[in-house]
Amino acid sequence: MKKPSSSATNLNKENLKHFLNTQDFTKKELQDILDLMKMLKEARRDNAIPQLFKGKSVAMIFEQPSTRTRVSFETAATLLGGHALFLSPRDIHLGAKESLEDTSRVLSRMVDIMMARVDDHKTVADLAKYASVPVINGLCDWLHPTQIMADIFTMMEHIPEGKKLEDLTVAFVGDATNVNSSLMFACTQFGMHYKHIGPEKYLAPKKWQDIARDNCKKSGGKLTITEDINEVKGCDIIVADSFYWFGQEAEKEERLTTFIPKYVVTKEMMDLAGENAIFMHCLPANDQREVTREVMEGERSVIFDEAENRLTAQMALLVYFTHQHHVEPSEETIKYHEVKINDFLKKL
Amino acid sequence: MKKPSSSATNLNKENLKHFLNTQDFTKKELQDILDLMKMLKEARRDNAIPQLFKGKSVAMIFEQPSTRTRVSFETAATLLGGHALFLSPRDIHLGAKESLEDTSRVLSRMVDIMMARVDDHKTVADLAKYASVPVINGLCDWLHPTQIMADIFTMMEHIPEGKKLEDLTVAFVGDATNVNSSLMFACTQFGMHYKHIGPEKYLAPKKWQDIARDNCKKSGGKLTITEDINEVKGCDIIVADSFYWFGQEAEKEERLTTFIPKYVVTKEMMDLAGENAIFMHCLPANDQREVTREVMEGERSVIFDEAENRLTAQMALLVYFTHQHHVEPSEETIKYHEVKINDFLKKL
Amino acid sequence: MKKPSSSATNLNKENLKHFLNTQDFTKKELQDILDLMKMLKEARRDNAIPQLFKGKSVAMIFEQPSTRTRVSFETAATLLGGHALFLSPRDIHLGAKESLEDTSRVLSRMVDIMMARVDDHKTVADLAKYASVPVINGLCDWLHPTQIMADIFTMMEHIPEGKKLEDLTVAFVGDATNVNSSLMFACTQFGMHYKHIGPEKYLAPKKWQDIARDNCKKSGGKLTITEDINEVKGCDIIVADSFYWFGQEAEKEERLTTFIPKYVVTKEMMDLAGENAIFMHCLPANDQREVTREVMEGERSVIFDEAENRLTAQMALLVYFTHQHHVEPSEETIKYHEVKINDFLKKL
Repeated sequence: MKKPSSSATNLNKENLKHFLNTQDFTKKELQDILDLMKMLKEARRDNAIPQLFKGKSVAMIFEQPSTRTRVSFETAATLLGGHALFLSPRDIHLGAKESLEDTSRVLSRMVDIMMARVDDHKTVADLAKYASVPVINGLCDWLHPTQIMADIFTMMEHIPEGKKLEDLTVAFVGDATNVNSSLMFACTQFGMHYKHIGPEKYLAPKKWQDIARDNCKKSGGKLTITEDINEVKGCDIIVADSFYWFGQEAEKEERLTTFIPKYVVTKEMMDLAGENAIFMHCLPANDQREVTREVMEGERSVIFDEAENRLTAQMALLVYFTHQHHVEPSEETIKYHEVKINDFLKKL
Repeated sequence: MKKPSSSATNLNKENLKHFLNTQDFTKKELQDILDLMKMLKEARRDNAIPQLFKGKSVAMIFEQPSTRTRVSFETAATLLGGHALFLSPRDIHLGAKESLEDTSRVLSRMVDIMMARVDDHKTVADLAKYASVPVINGLCDWLHPTQIMADIFTMMEHIPEGKKLEDLTVAFVGDATNVNSSLMFACTQFGMHYKHIGPEKYLAPKKWQDIARDNCKKSGGKLTITEDINEVKGCDIIVADSFYWFGQEAEKEERLTTFIPKYVVTKEMMDLAGENAIFMHCLPANDQREVTREVMEGERSVIFDEAENRLTAQMALLVYFTHQHHVEPSEETIKYHEVKINDFLKKL
Repeated sequence: MKKPSSSATNLNKENLKHFLNTQDFTKKELQDILDLMKMLKEARRDNAIPQLFKGKSVAMIFEQPSTRTRVSFETAATLLGGHALFLSPRDIHLGAKESLEDTSRVLSRMVDIMMARVDDHKTVADLAKYASVPVINGLCDWLHPTQIMADIFTMMEHIPEGKKLEDLTVAFVGDATNVNSSLMFACTQFGMHYKHIGPEKYLAPKKWQDIARDNCKKSGGKLTITEDINEVKGCDIIVADSFYWFGQEAEKEERLTTFIPKYVVTKEMMDLAGENAIFMHCLPANDQREVTREVMEGERSVIFDEAENRLTAQMALLVYFTHQHHVEPSEETIKYHEVKINDFLKKL
């Protein structure tokens, strides 16, 4: 006979949803998260954010350092009345002193939700497998779904008048990064036309393209994978990302030689896209590498709105994934515990 | 004439209690903390924890990294409405740039309570000596009292029907670790039968046994220190811990050779203990070293309840050690400061 | 046409004030901050601090580690109902992976105020230049203005009866540190007599003296820069600071030889100052270097009150620099967002 657990956290693993990949969600569900982002951003503008994460904690696990992801999650938790624990690469080594499955189960007993930024997608997937609280993929080698919620939302904010999301064409110029994969998946889920433009060697692998093509069949979207930079013409949104990352230092010179100058986003490229095209970048940007400072500072750049929307997205994600497990106590229940414990303390 | 201090923290050092060792507390006082744990865990289950640490801060000082102790204290502070400051081994070096006595006195002016995880018991004892706020021993080379509050509480939750705490027999199998010392002290304080079973070289030193034997005289408890693994027979609880620690890497091979296979907790050992025996471990566990994965995942394992109770214990300790210094402001006082300061700000 | 930003943080850069140097503020403005410190310290004594930083976040950026600055800001934010993010030298490298101007603008979209402890004054000045939220100088190679607000406040608390701030004479004994510059500026702004006493080589540079002399012309204060240690005679306050810092290890021996024993604050020096003179030090202090333990522990030492007032100052600074950007939501607005978002969540 299995001993019943004495846990105070009665989460039902059957109902548990994790945010590992936008592909695990329907278009309707992604739209719900975007709608929640809109409401929370409006509430932030009025300094009247409902305290939907009050007393709650999110464990932020980082295998790589990241200012933007960390600050946005930590501030989001604070704005919603809760707390974020920063577990840096120096504080926690997933799978080192303890098996990942044990760490996941222990943290699940103490916090309300986890966010992990990992080197390998398998790590965050395994964390979710053993967790009894929701797990958010805060970036892995393959995907970056929280960034993409911020990106789609920023597109909606800056959409040309009269156009809907599915009318947009997005050109991602550069390497098949995790931002590219997640953006390709989400844009095609939403029925947009997504173009990945870059040197052949660095274009999205076939199996990832297949996922996006499947999306298009359902959504009416379109996918273009091409080396031809002239394809930016008429695009509504130009997206850039770094040409090399951690662990790619050895390839740095080869990469820069291949990408520069053809795939650098310049004012000329923005002009080719069109006068209403906007420029996006997940940041940090390397000046004069993947994009010129002129474009970053130009009137068509929405990069700081995009950065702010990381915070908008994290607020919505914390709420969306924890609200269903939330127990709202009655006034009587609050009073009951308050009186009981205070009476006990007075007698000590 | 000594200049009077202008401090806003008027703590009376005479009334100050620290949690360095369960031996500094009566059985009644330890039972009070366990009772408080029960009440706070029930309140957590209802999501209705009284905000007894609201606006308060605990400084967590770590000379060694620790995920479990850190997350449990940080989440406990959050659940109670307050905040935990994480001072990692990289952020603070006790006694390095500043004397320990000065650091202790400065922190005492800024925070409401301190928790320190130290290499040497003397460090946490000195911290307490100079502090004007309570100090909690979050683990030292000798003791681990916060772990033990979680452990005793977990035993109470899983106690066989009809038995009381003093009816239990606990077998700690392994090295004379800090968990062993603190558990040996607390179990014998509570009148339990405590067995430390391990290779002779690694059994608890005589002077620590003497403390436990003194406890037994008062409590009616019993102490057994033995190499004989058959002594697990009939025990209610089998506890394992790591066979080597930080700073013992040089001894690792010798230790493993001595401990394995005789003192590894296996399904066979659990069967010898009896069908109602439960398995406990402070974690992290080294698979297939001190315990098999089969036992950890087995129906008699309560290791994740035990881990969750770290949080239960930290909540109770934060409340127990700060509530007596708490000043409850009246509505009038709150209003007085609010109006005065807001009026001042409006005129700026 | 510049696309309008979609930001939820509508700060007006024209109205933005930063706290980089007390010289950027009038005597009236500095007095306002001191008055606010007094009110907040009184409120802390009553455990009734208005929650003026509720839901707000301060990003603390450290290029150098610092326990005191970090703990005081983090606790201040907590006491006021908000949160401090600790960005250690390991978590953020200003100007490394991202240009300082981009980092400043991104953080401005996520937090309500920044505090930076930097190696080079230019770094914190540039951070402020690009920020759209207030920036506080938490120490740089030149200045330490938050320390000095604590120091002036501590002087006011311990002022001899019948004397006003402008009646005081302050002797800073030692090196021309950042504490010395900021204290020299602030004391002469307040019309006090400020003496920097030390070996000629380590006295404040002419251009900094000029700033203080200009202050004296307006305030009626007086500046003395001298090697003569007998100038401590009759001073109300003796201030010491470290004889060498990070990056000055190579000069350590030369510095110690030059400063010791003449400029070490001893009981004899305090006696020469006078029986009512008080001793101050920003801490950490190096025992038996710049000051004897006897003086630190003596009845005339106010060093722990001074340390506590770091917290008093940080509370006032967080409030002073954010209150003008604060949007107070009406009950209706709070209800509006609460109902709208909760209704939405229920339908999910």
